[in-house]
Amino acid sequence: MTVRIGVIGVGMIGQDHIRRLSHVLSGARVVAVTDVDLDRAQTVADDLPGVRLHQSGQDLIADPDVDAVVVTSWGPTHEEYVLASIAAGKQVFCEKPLAPTREACERILDAELAAGRRLVMVGFMRRYDAQYRSMKAAVTSGDIGAPLLMHAAHRNPSVPDFFTSDMTISDSTVHDIDVARWMFDDELAAVTVFTGRTRSNAAEGFHDPLLVLLEMANGVLVDVEASVNAAYGYDIRGEVVCETGTVELSESAGTIVKRAGAHAGRVPVDWRERFVRAFDTEFQAWIDAVAAGGTTGPSAWDGYAATIGTDAGLEALRTRQRVPITMRERPDLYKVS
Amino acid sequence: MTVRIGVIGVGMIGQDHIRRLSHVLSGARVVAVTDVDLDRAQTVADDLPGVRLHQSGQDLIADPDVDAVVVTSWGPTHEEYVLASIAAGKQVFCEKPLAPTREACERILDAELAAGRRLVMVGFMRRYDAQYRSMKAAVTSGDIGAPLLMHAAHRNPSVPDFFTSDMTISDSTVHDIDVARWMFDDELAAVTVFTGRTRSNAAEGFHDPLLVLLEMANGVLVDVEASVNAAYGYDIRGEVVCETGTVELSESAGTIVKRAGAHAGRVPVDWRERFVRAFDTEFQAWIDAVAAGGTTGPSAWDGYAATIGTDAGLEALRTRQRVPITMRERPDLYKVS
Amino acid sequence: MTVRIGVIGVGMIGQDHIRRLSHVLSGARVVAVTDVDLDRAQTVADDLPGVRLHQSGQDLIADPDVDAVVVTSWGPTHEEYVLASIAAGKQVFCEKPLAPTREACERILDAELAAGRRLVMVGFMRRYDAQYRSMKAAVTSGDIGAPLLMHAAHRNPSVPDFFTSDMTISDSTVHDIDVARWMFDDELAAVTVFTGRTRSNAAEGFHDPLLVLLEMANGVLVDVEASVNAAYGYDIRGEVVCETGTVELSESAGTIVKRAGAHAGRVPVDWRERFVRAFDTEFQAWIDAVAAGGTTGPSAWDGYAATIGTDAGLEALRTRQRVPITMRERPDLYKVS
Amino acid sequence: MTVRIGVIGVGMIGQDHIRRLSHVLSGARVVAVTDVDLDRAQTVADDLPGVRLHQSGQDLIADPDVDAVVVTSWGPTHEEYVLASIAAGKQVFCEKPLAPTREACERILDAELAAGRRLVMVGFMRRYDAQYRSMKAAVTSGDIGAPLLMHAAHRNPSVPDFFTSDMTISDSTVHDIDVARWMFDDELAAVTVFTGRTRSNAAEGFHDPLLVLLEMANGVLVDVEASVNAAYGYDIRGEVVCETGTVELSESAGTIVKRAGAHAGRVPVDWRERFVRAFDTEFQAWIDAVAAGGTTGPSAWDGYAATIGTDAGLEALRTRQRVPITMRERPDLYKVS
Repeated sequence: MTVRIGVIGVGMIGQDHIRRLSHVLSGARVVAVTDVDLDRAQTVADDLPGVRLHQSGQDLIADPDVDAVVVTSWGPTHEEYVLASIAAGKQVFCEKPLAPTREACERILDAELAAGRRLVMVGFMRRYDAQYRSMKAAVTSGDIGAPLLMHAAHRNPSVPDFFTSDMTISDSTVHDIDVARWMFDDELAAVTVFTGRTRSNAAEGFHDPLLVLLEMANGVLVDVEASVNAAYGYDIRGEVVCETGTVELSESAGTIVKRAGAHAGRVPVDWRERFVRAFDTEFQAWIDAVAAGGTTGPSAWDGYAATIGTDAGLEALRTRQRVPITMRERPDLYKVS
Repeated sequence: MTVRIGVIGVGMIGQDHIRRLSHVLSGARVVAVTDVDLDRAQTVADDLPGVRLHQSGQDLIADPDVDAVVVTSWGPTHEEYVLASIAAGKQVFCEKPLAPTREACERILDAELAAGRRLVMVGFMRRYDAQYRSMKAAVTSGDIGAPLLMHAAHRNPSVPDFFTSDMTISDSTVHDIDVARWMFDDELAAVTVFTGRTRSNAAEGFHDPLLVLLEMANGVLVDVEASVNAAYGYDIRGEVVCETGTVELSESAGTIVKRAGAHAGRVPVDWRERFVRAFDTEFQAWIDAVAAGGTTGPSAWDGYAATIGTDAGLEALRTRQRVPITMRERPDLYKVS
Repeated sequence: MTVRIGVIGVGMIGQDHIRRLSHVLSGARVVAVTDVDLDRAQTVADDLPGVRLHQSGQDLIADPDVDAVVVTSWGPTHEEYVLASIAAGKQVFCEKPLAPTREACERILDAELAAGRRLVMVGFMRRYDAQYRSMKAAVTSGDIGAPLLMHAAHRNPSVPDFFTSDMTISDSTVHDIDVARWMFDDELAAVTVFTGRTRSNAAEGFHDPLLVLLEMANGVLVDVEASVNAAYGYDIRGEVVCETGTVELSESAGTIVKRAGAHAGRVPVDWRERFVRAFDTEFQAWIDAVAAGGTTGPSAWDGYAATIGTDAGLEALRTRQRVPITMRERPDLYKVS
Repeated sequence: MTVRIGVIGVGMIGQDHIRRLSHVLSGARVVAVTDVDLDRAQTVADDLPGVRLHQSGQDLIADPDVDAVVVTSWGPTHEEYVLASIAAGKQVFCEKPLAPTREACERILDAELAAGRRLVMVGFMRRYDAQYRSMKAAVTSGDIGAPLLMHAAHRNPSVPDFFTSDMTISDSTVHDIDVARWMFDDELAAVTVFTGRTRSNAAEGFHDPLLVLLEMANGVLVDVEASVNAAYGYDIRGEVVCETGTVELSESAGTIVKRAGAHAGRVPVDWRERFVRAFDTEFQAWIDAVAAGGTTGPSAWDGYAATIGTDAGLEALRTRQRVPITMRERPDLYKVS
């Protein structure tokens, strides 16, 4: 069975997922698209034989030929489309954030709970990265004891001029928050943000890097360097310190070139190069789960927790205080079996 | 358009390719299978809804619903199925070897030349491995000068009891021969094989490792260690020495675990783990090329050259003499544009 | 000219320095020893032909055959011997800490300032480690821009039962404080200490690891993981993040062994293995400087700053508050030319 | 006791050893020098207070104030000075080669055998390199089984115009010959040399790189790439393949710099940088042994075997034939206990 997919939002990431669904992965077909910019949606549809253009996300979700929905529109619009998909009883893959506010996320949780089954997957693709999976396997193997601490760094080569430190938290650190929750099967307890010397090319009030300290409920500390104008490449680092050993992400594989007094390997240019396989694996997992009648991976609960975490991070950045986390009780639907 | 594929030979590698075509890649569908062991073929067909079982490879090739053919049967049968595919005007992907003898390969060349267009791709998947591609990019970039020498090692963790040193040449070194020809855009000129101390668990007359010296027409030397009972893992090493620098394959990426006085990374368990991505990329390239009406990648000429190279290697192993290579003239059809 | 050296304190580190001065380095000779435990001093002296045993440090310093003094006694006794050496106009090498209290360090500063020339070197050997020197060279080269952040980890395999979290700060983090001051040619501005999940074998009230945040006067942040029961080995990590690149300590060199599915290198067993060369280099630099009539390396000012830093760290650990640093004005004698 | 040393030959390497003996190591003092160029010897002596200038090596050896002799003169003169040292009953450290001909080496063996005790150490410093020692420890540990094969590469950044392929064998491959004999506690059985494509800047008849195949008596094969104009740095590679694992030299330690899309480490500039520690360790071992009344390390027998190996290499390069090794019986004096 081929899963027939409708895509809401055909910007850069939406187009990349359409390419992935159409030309890379197995078992799915894009049958409908829409976008707030209908001209752009039309252009995309023109390149995809047999794809229907819808005037709105709601129309697309209602289309009986659409089995499942991919939401890659602007963050503040996610809630509306996810809720409509749940109402229609259709599986929906929503790029992060699930929704930008705690309240919006709670409305989604309530809707899904009312539906009585998981219909939402949130796009935290690092959980599908081979290195992160190997790291989690080492942490849970017991070979190096219980986890105590994690060091992480997220380094983006550059960001556009309109980028703010708030966006560093909500667009970049959100991944580290999800990784920490997933790595340690635990919730966040508090967030603190430190700033120090800032890159000299930063705009007034823009702090880069940020140093974010996450405290997990079980006491594990996670320090995260978030650099968004690191210049030299896209570099994601991580090390988990356990009782009797550690596990860390290695440099990306490839070739080593020796010339001019140095041996050198490549640092990825951007997130696509670093995580292309993780995106492929994530989507194939979702397609396979949808074809089997369900969903998989990061849930609406994970999306809710991440939004609460980034909210706390934003408050911590503003106030320079440690911000404790409060969450509602975790419903049974979201308990890991 | 979905390419409808018939698979001849459903042993381990054939089944792996069926899985790949059915559940991993985009744009193809397996519609027919056969095997010398019809019971096995039946079992495989039973798991694939809508797949037809044929009584012979010839029947499968003749099936009008089969757009293209994958030959993964026993080596000595390849010639027959490749020739039939050419005769039927259908694209055929043939696992290595193209055919086990020079004469058989020449008959395939003659048939394809008579057809006037390329219909055959041979499965030398290392050409699709990201590390080998990065290595070739470095060699051809000019950044480190012209190539002079290559060091290579092929280490298999273990082989079954029936394995012989001849099989080391024909099953393992054949890959190094193809890599050398492709890396340096050049033909082999001679092969010499050295043996020394042998693994103590080797059977009488079984030499492991072999040290194979390839001489390319342009003078580049390639030394290849071929170990088939290396025990510790599946390890493929390579370094090209150029005029002003070198390029080498790195260790496989993954995580680094520190414990008990050591920092350690993983060596792949087997060829599947090491080359799974290369196989995926190779097959997707072939599917895309077939969908576009042609083929791509290693040609029948490459298959012919590899068989001549392994023949020379076998003679060199038997005689302990340097064995020069003789080949027919390379037809225009196989000249790289 | 051979520098004639007297050693006060012949415990483990004192004996190691005697071995170094006697059998490894050039230009020095141990001529006198003493220790609070005179029997131990006698035993050490018996192994060193021509070495005089003194009843006290003061006697040793007064000995006209002693050109220069090495102080490797218990920390609280350092002040007395350093002051006596200054009074005697003799060069003195004092292991860290210079003295355990701010006031004691200030008395040493005052004495040396009164003498009008540098007579004290403090044993912060990391400044002589080839990797740290290479790191500082990269930071100051300008090739990767100005420094913004440093990540550090100090991991000791194990500590005795009497070890406390205070000792983690004063014995281990003191090195990171000195490295940060030296690396960035800057003073500390504040210290904060975080604790989270603790190793399960830790005694009540013993926090391991600690996460220490150093803020430099110029805004550079330094996060330091201090683990003293890391079990797997002695592992010192560091990475400096600059505007356009980073520089990090590599794993210790050595051989890579491949066996049983892994490629593995060695983690040092203890600080001796890791820093043996740094100690050699540090002492040879001191001997050469003394032979030339002066001193070199970390000064009494550096010892004073380190003690103030560890004091702040201890207060931060106790109070869980950010503790700002206050220091006296840096005298000209200690300004880097 | 300080060993009083006379140095014959004060060219580049002689001066480096004088620096080492005078300013780096412990327990020795240079008391006399000479050189075929007496002006140069005078200049060197002028910088060393208390050092006597001798008119000839024979005079220096006869000097009663000289306890032991270092021979760093031109290779063809080694025999004379080593024989005179043996005749004088003085320990002698002779840089490689012990002597350039088999016959000269045999005369040295005969003289030392007549003396009835070891008086000669030959300067094969790689045996004192920490990485090679770690490699030998892994090979002899049994953890990875018996050795089968070794891959080696010697890459020099550049050589002067007068350099010849013969010199590649005698100056560079000689080290690989000694390493192989030492690593496997075995003698050479045969040598073959291959040439292929040559660096384009090489003079007529100069082959660079050479590929040298050493066969050990126990069957272990050693392939050695000898590149003397490798341009990018001084790079010594080695991997021993054993029955169940391998051990290889790692890249030199240091820092890793990330900038401009790459992570990079340093390749040593020259042999001094790579082997400075090995030279120090080698000489300290010799000084300590001499002070204790004997010698240590590579013996005259090792020098003899190396010369026979390079002789075979030169013949193999000239004839392009496999050249078997013949040696006299190993006297008991040179048997490893």
